[in-house]
Order: sequence, then C-alpha cells, then structure tokens
Amino acid sequence: MSKRALSVSRDQNFPDWYQAAVRDGDMAETSPVRGCMVIKPWGWGVWERIQAELDARIKETGHENCYFPLFIPMSFIAKEAEHVEGFAKEMAVVTHHRLKNEGGTLVVDPAAKLEEPLIVRPTSETIIGDAFQRWIKTYRDLPLLINQWANVVRWEMRTRLFLRTAEFLWQEGHTAHADRDDAVAETMKMLEVYREFAETVLAMPVIAGEKPANERFPGAVSTYSIEAMMQDGKALQAGTSHYLGTHFAKAQNIQFQNRDNELEYCHTTSWGVSTRLIGGVIMTHGDDDGLRVPPKIAPRQIVIVPMLRDKPEDAELLDYCGALEKELKTAGIRVLVDAKPIKSAEKRWNWVRRGAPVIVEIGGRDAAGGNVTYMRRDALRDGDKVASHTCPRDEFVAGAPKLLDDIQAQLFAEAKKRLDENIVDGIKTFDEMAAYFGEAEEDGGAFKGWVNVAWSKPEGDELEAIAERLKALKLTIRNAPLNQKPAQGDCLFTGAPAKEYVLIGRAY
Amino acid sequence: MSKRALSVSRDQNFPDWYQAAVRDGDMAETSPVRGCMVIKPWGWGVWERIQAELDARIKETGHENCYFPLFIPMSFIAKEAEHVEGFAKEMAVVTHHRLKNEGGTLVVDPAAKLEEPLIVRPTSETIIGDAFQRWIKTYRDLPLLINQWANVVRWEMRTRLFLRTAEFLWQEGHTAHADRDDAVAETMKMLEVYREFAETVLAMPVIAGEKPANERFPGAVSTYSIEAMMQDGKALQAGTSHYLGTHFAKAQNIQFQNRDNELEYCHTTSWGVSTRLIGGVIMTHGDDDGLRVPPKIAPRQIVIVPMLRDKPEDAELLDYCGALEKELKTAGIRVLVDAKPIKSAEKRWNWVRRGAPVIVEIGGRDAAGGNVTYMRRDALRDGDKVASHTCPRDEFVAGAPKLLDDIQAQLFAEAKKRLDENIVDGIKTFDEMAAYFGEAEEDGGAFKGWVNVAWSKPEGDELEAIAERLKALKLTIRNAPLNQKPAQGDCLFTGAPAKEYVLIGRAY
Repeated sequence: MSKRALSVSRDQNFPDWYQAAVRDGDMAETSPVRGCMVIKPWGWGVWERIQAELDARIKETGHENCYFPLFIPMSFIAKEAEHVEGFAKEMAVVTHHRLKNEGGTLVVDPAAKLEEPLIVRPTSETIIGDAFQRWIKTYRDLPLLINQWANVVRWEMRTRLFLRTAEFLWQEGHTAHADRDDAVAETMKMLEVYREFAETVLAMPVIAGEKPANERFPGAVSTYSIEAMMQDGKALQAGTSHYLGTHFAKAQNIQFQNRDNELEYCHTTSWGVSTRLIGGVIMTHGDDDGLRVPPKIAPRQIVIVPMLRDKPEDAELLDYCGALEKELKTAGIRVLVDAKPIKSAEKRWNWVRRGAPVIVEIGGRDAAGGNVTYMRRDALRDGDKVASHTCPRDEFVAGAPKLLDDIQAQLFAEAKKRLDENIVDGIKTFDEMAAYFGEAEEDGGAFKGWVNVAWSKPEGDELEAIAERLKALKLTIRNAPLNQKPAQGDCLFTGAPAKEYVLIGRAY
Repeated sequence: MSKRALSVSRDQNFPDWYQAAVRDGDMAETSPVRGCMVIKPWGWGVWERIQAELDARIKETGHENCYFPLFIPMSFIAKEAEHVEGFAKEMAVVTHHRLKNEGGTLVVDPAAKLEEPLIVRPTSETIIGDAFQRWIKTYRDLPLLINQWANVVRWEMRTRLFLRTAEFLWQEGHTAHADRDDAVAETMKMLEVYREFAETVLAMPVIAGEKPANERFPGAVSTYSIEAMMQDGKALQAGTSHYLGTHFAKAQNIQFQNRDNELEYCHTTSWGVSTRLIGGVIMTHGDDDGLRVPPKIAPRQIVIVPMLRDKPEDAELLDYCGALEKELKTAGIRVLVDAKPIKSAEKRWNWVRRGAPVIVEIGGRDAAGGNVTYMRRDALRDGDKVASHTCPRDEFVAGAPKLLDDIQAQLFAEAKKRLDENIVDGIKTFDEMAAYFGEAEEDGGAFKGWVNVAWSKPEGDELEAIAERLKALKLTIRNAPLNQKPAQGDCLFTGAPAKEYVLIGRAY
C-alpha cells in the first residue's frame, strides 16, 4: 500500500478514517463535555460559509430571521408529548439556578430549585408556536415565514463529531399558512432550496424525496428529505422539510381570522439542516490524504506556502507571495499566505489534510522566474506522486476563478458518478435484496450503495413489520424520490401492486 | 404636549419610554421563559448588521472564530471559584438528561441524574482555557487569537429587554500571549476596535478607559471599558476588554516552551460585547416617535411605502416603486417596498417607530411627475408637523448614499454633543458632587450626566469604602479615560494628591 497523508485509509476502516480526517483536517475535536464538540477555526470557517450561502437563499425566498429562547418550559414539552406519539425524552433538563459553596466545595444549591424545570431546546416548534399564536391575528399576517440559527441539544448516547452530537448547530425554519396548498408548496420549496444548496454549494449530490410514514417527524403529516451517499455506501439524511398540517396549530391554538371573519387553524411547516452537513461533506469528498473542501465553502480557497529558508532571501519571497495574495484577493478569492515559522513541507501536508482546494508553493526559482507552482487538491496525485503544476503568475491569477470552478465541478462530478452508479434497480424480492446486502458483509463491508425497489406504500402495522425486517439487515427506507417514473410490478414486501419506488440502504 | 408616535415620552418616564420603544419598534418581546427574550425580525436584523461589521474587524485584527460547548462541567467552574474572588454563582444548572411519563404526567426522570452537573456557560474562560492548554505547546503557537459568537446565560433576577436578560448573545474573544506586553497590547487593541466600532457603526460616542479595581472582571489584572451616555444621563458599559495576567493560565496550566526551551505561563486576555449594545443604540438615538436606527445597522435603510388605494392605478404605482427599489439596490442600499395590505398611514408610522432611516411615500402624483417624497427619520419633525421632502427620482437615487451618510453623521453628532456637554468638570469635594446629583432627585430625575473628578486611585478597603459612599448616591465610578491630561490637585475622596481623573455617574 502506498503512503498517504492519513494514517488509515477509507478501505481499511471507514469510521477510523473519518475520525482521522476530522482530527488531522483541524475541523473539530471532542470536548471534556460528554457528546459536545469543539469546532476549530477551519471547521468553523466551513460552517460560516455554509451559513452565509444558505442564509442568503432563505432570505431570497422571503423568510426573516428571529431568535427564540434557549430554554423551553417543561409544560410546553408536556403539551407536545401528549399530542405527539414517538416523542423523544432524552434532553438536557435545567432544574436549579444557583451553585453554592459548602465547606469549600461547590455544590448545587437546593434552595435554588426552579418551580418548573426548563428544557434546553431540542427543537423549537413549541416555543415558536407560542409566539405565532400571539403574532397571528388575521389572514393578512399570513404566510408568516420565520427562520432561526441556533444551537440545540439532544442527549445522544453514542456520539460522533458532526454526525451525531449532544449539542449541534442548525437552522430551523418555521412557517404558518392560511391553507394546505400554501403550506405544502412551502415544504416543497424549502426541500428544493436544500437540494440546490447541497449540490451547488457543497458539491454533494442528493436524492430529494418523501420519507415513509414510520420515518416522519413526530406530528408531521409528511416529511421530505435529501439523502446523500457517503463513500462507504451509507446514506446520510442531510436535510428535512416537514408539512405539519394543523396538528401543531391545534395543540398551540395558532388561529387566524379568514376573509369571511371566521377563525381557522393555520397549516404549519418546519425544515432544518445542521452541522451534520459538515460530516456529509467530509464523507463525500475526503480521500486518503485527508479532506477535500469544495471551493465554495473553503475558508481559504488558495493557500500560498512560501518556501522559507531562514535566510535574507526570505524577504523577497514573502514580498512575491504578498503581491500574489493581493492580486488574488482583488479577484474575490479567499487566500492566505501561510508564513508560520514551521517547515514548508509540514505546511504543505497540513493544507493537504485540511483540504484547501489549491495549494501554491513558492520557492526562489518561482519568484525569480515570475512563476507559480501549485497543486489541485481534487487531483493531488499522479500515481503515488504529488502532481504539481507551474505556470506564469499572471496566467495563474487570471485563471484562478475558473480553476476553483473546475475543482467545484470536478468534486461534484465524482460524487454524482458514485451516486448514480450505486443505486441498483431490478431487485424484486426481499431475499434478493438480503443477498445483495449480505454480500457486503462477506466482503468485509464492501461498498454496496442503495437499492431502488417498488413498493405498495403500506402504513401502520404492516409498515412497522417491514421496518423490523429491514432493521435485521441494518437497512432502512431512505425516501421515495420525487419525479420518479410510474411504478410497475408488485411490492417487494407485500406482493400488492406497487405504488412507487423507494430507496433502501444503510444509513448514518 | 404635542402628539408623538409613542404613548409615553422620554421626559415623562424614561424606563417606560424604553419599553414602548422596544415594543412598538418591533425589536423584541418578553417570552414565557423567565428573563429570556424573543428577538423579532427587525431587532435580529440589527444584530446581524452588528455581527457582520464587528466580525470583519475581529478578523482583520487576526482573530479566528471557533465554537466551544454550551455546557461547562461543574468541576471547571469550581476551579474558577477557588481561584477567583467575587465569583458569581447565579447560573443555569443542568442536572438530568431525561423526562419520563409518570401516570400521564411528564416529570424529570430521577434515574437520569447526571454524575456531574453541567452549567450553561455564563462565559467561556474555563472551557476555552482547557482547549488552550491542549493546543499551546511552544512559542510558535503564540499568540493564539480566538473569538466565539455564542449565547450565554446568567441567572438575573431583574431583567430588561436587551439590557439585562438571563440569556443573551455576545462575542467573546480569548487570546494567549508569550508575555505581558503582547497581552496588554492586545487588550488595548480590542478596546480601540470597540471604540471605533461603537462610534463609526452604531453612531454611539463612548469614552474608553480603565475600570477601577473594584469593577474589574473577577481574576483580571486590569479591565477596560467603553462607556456610553444614555438620554437619561446614565452610563451604559457597552464593551469590556480584560488583561488577565497569568492568573487563568496558572489555574488552567496554559504553558508554552519558550525559545530557551523553558516552560512559561501564558498571559491571557478576554473581551466581549453583547446584545446589550442594541439597548444602547435605542437609548442613544430613540426619540418620542420611536427608534432611530443608524443607517449602518438598519436592516432596511430606505423603506418605500406605495400609497395604494385598492384601485387599478395601484399596479402602476407598484411598478414605479419596484423600479425605484431596483435602482437603490444597485447602489448597494438595503431597501424594501412595503406592499402589505394595510393602510399606508399605518405603514408610515410603523416604519417611523421602527426607525428606518429614510421613509419614502409614493403617491400617484409622485409617480406621474417622476418624483420621490421622503422623510428623514433623524429629522422627522418641523415643529409638530412631519417634514417631508420631494425631489426628482434620479436626484434621489443619485443622492441616496450621501443621504444615508449624512443621517449616520447627524445621529453621531447629536449624541456626541450630548455626551460632551454633560460631563461636568471642576467638582472638588464629595459634598459638591452629592449636591450636584442630589438636584437631579429634586427635579424628578432630570438629566445630569457624569462628573469628571480627580482621585488618588486607591485600592483595597479604601476603595471599597468609597464605592459604598457612592452607592448611597446610586453612583459608580465608570472609568478613567485614556489619554487624559495629567491630574492636578487633590483626590476628591481621600485628599491625597490626585493621580488621574475618573468619570462618575449613574449607570445601567
């Protein structure tokens, strides 16, 4: 096996590779607080770009940002619990508001017990619904289109950086509408915003579709998702959009006066994506040398490493790099000269592992000849060797925006090919499907992707039984893709005439 | 008394006026969660502009953003409590991680008690210090310059929207340096960033200076602040910057190997501003018609209100407004056409109360004549009448950026004049000072501003005694302004030779 910049390859052990990629790519680390992560500057820079790009789209589609309290009174949660089956109860509970010093030891002050416990928001439907109920009076106030960027907490037992953490960051959209059609249109519009965003900005191809009934958000009439395929073939649910009907409006008394002066319940929606997306980007684009960050979300798109030698000539080299930096900045590129006092080879590999899209190395010869030597992170290797390219500085600067566009397109194309090639059609029976995924086990977990099968869209107990059978194979139904061709033949599970196709695979 | 857009004037009752300005200006409202606020779209828009402008300055000065956990283990807090006198203990304590259904009622599950309670961060010195201790190995890792945008919680008993809330939003900078000089330079640099930001962006004049020893951040060697004067004469501490010496580094073992291969403790700093700034902006610029938001932080700088009449001509009017909007957008202005189906007079007054810098009203005559009729929010009235101006559309568009600059400058000039005129020099004795502020009481709380007095800079018990005497008059020492002239005469408190001048006033 050839030497690569990470200590473990994707083939050897994908979960270990992921951990190494996150750690050596300087994205995040575990913290002393169970299940909570520290997001490091490079990782946070990626999140800032994700926020900026998505926020612009959320605003363009008419939504306004707000901020609601971190805490939710337990009685609000109780109202939801009554109303919603499948309600999760693992959450952080604040019960006291003071510490005190007791014989030199800091303890929770029993005298400072809250009358009503507060829950750290796991999601904000209830607290935002409470505001909606106050804000909405008549049809003139509708639609009400709100979004919030916030931290939320769900007490997860098994956590994994970015993919599943007790505290995570997300945006949650909450909207209220006068009727079903308008709310459903909103649900679909935001699903499409997520799809376009994932593919254009994250270079992460996804399948948009409807989740089966057993995978709906508790209380939703319908839940839609975008699903991305990771490099181990597993699915990552990367974003969801829910049509909530009038369920939440009824539980929270969100009513409006219609044009005929009658009171009606609003139809509501909610939709969100989280820092989980960053895990998706890593598992979509990373290779055995580390991360490959798409240019549109790279905190630094081009990193310039001057090959300093602790000699007087260094000043000239730094001038040359500074001038190059300025020219690239003027062209609107996020660029950095890494002049840290460490060896340039070390800097090169740091930036390879972090996945900077373009790494420029400037030595004395480049400066003297007016040249630039660079590596494309999306095409780092030629065989085992690192592939570097040299061209005149002017040419490099003029071509830099296109170079970044090419890298963005190349990363998407690679991932799209993988997705398209690894959705298997034509499986007709449960046994065939079990055999197909069973092979993966025998191969030591070889890449199997997803299968696209016809089904009769059962609900209730029948669906539960199917979910159980799938679970035994570690499989789940991901979604029923939108805009699919009409279903033919019989349901793989029930034998009844098929209504649609669904994607099935393993998942994060 | 003439009629104004708010139901209460600043003169009548400043605290009530503030509440009305926040509420009717659509900035924020109280929530069902004690002490926590809901920040509404217009208020959030102001915060987004504040964040964007300040974040750019924080990055320009070499800092990188990160994200650290919301929760802090109680043992970390205990370490700080041992180490720091004056440590506050009012904080939200998470003790359990699950709710359960008990006979149809949701209760805290006693089986899910955390081994160690978690504190919702009141500030992040301890959890960030823990990371610093891991990240810093040698002098090459220094300075380490980190910032975080986050929500924090302090259990306040008496809360007030923006000014003092249990949950608030802020940025907290945390840096580590190789020596005292570098850390002190950082402390002063960030104080200057805050000063420039407050004056340039918020149009809020401030006095930058050092806090007296009794007002230092617990554990700090020195604390600096910017202080702004509100329209009731009270001071608002609008930002702080702390030089922490090696105290925190020693408590948390933040050490580095110096150039001689010896271990040394880092010198650290921290600095922050919060959503409190929004309260400062309101109390600096608001008038009896509501808010006046400085153009640089106004979510919409120009709002266009079409005078719709529910007639066919409306379409033409909307076209005219749409074209105007497009031209202003092209000029880089944040503009909105408010086409909501409510009366235009109501819309006008909504935007007056929200403090949009320029409100344009377009009627049929304006559209026909190619004109624009507008109001400047900074100069809304001519006597009791609303002052509106009409000019050709081209002229308005061409002049709009300068118009906004003028409004920004005008708001600053007004506030600066108030600040400068209301700092009183020449008071030599405590009794004189008591008499000066005593008059205010007799006047029913008339505006008194601050006094600038000479003192001998005592510390310890002597300072405590002075603070107590001041407290009886509801006064505090705000800060010792930077770049002041050499002190003359004797200390107002001790009679010893004066070392410097300090500002004294009432405060939020």
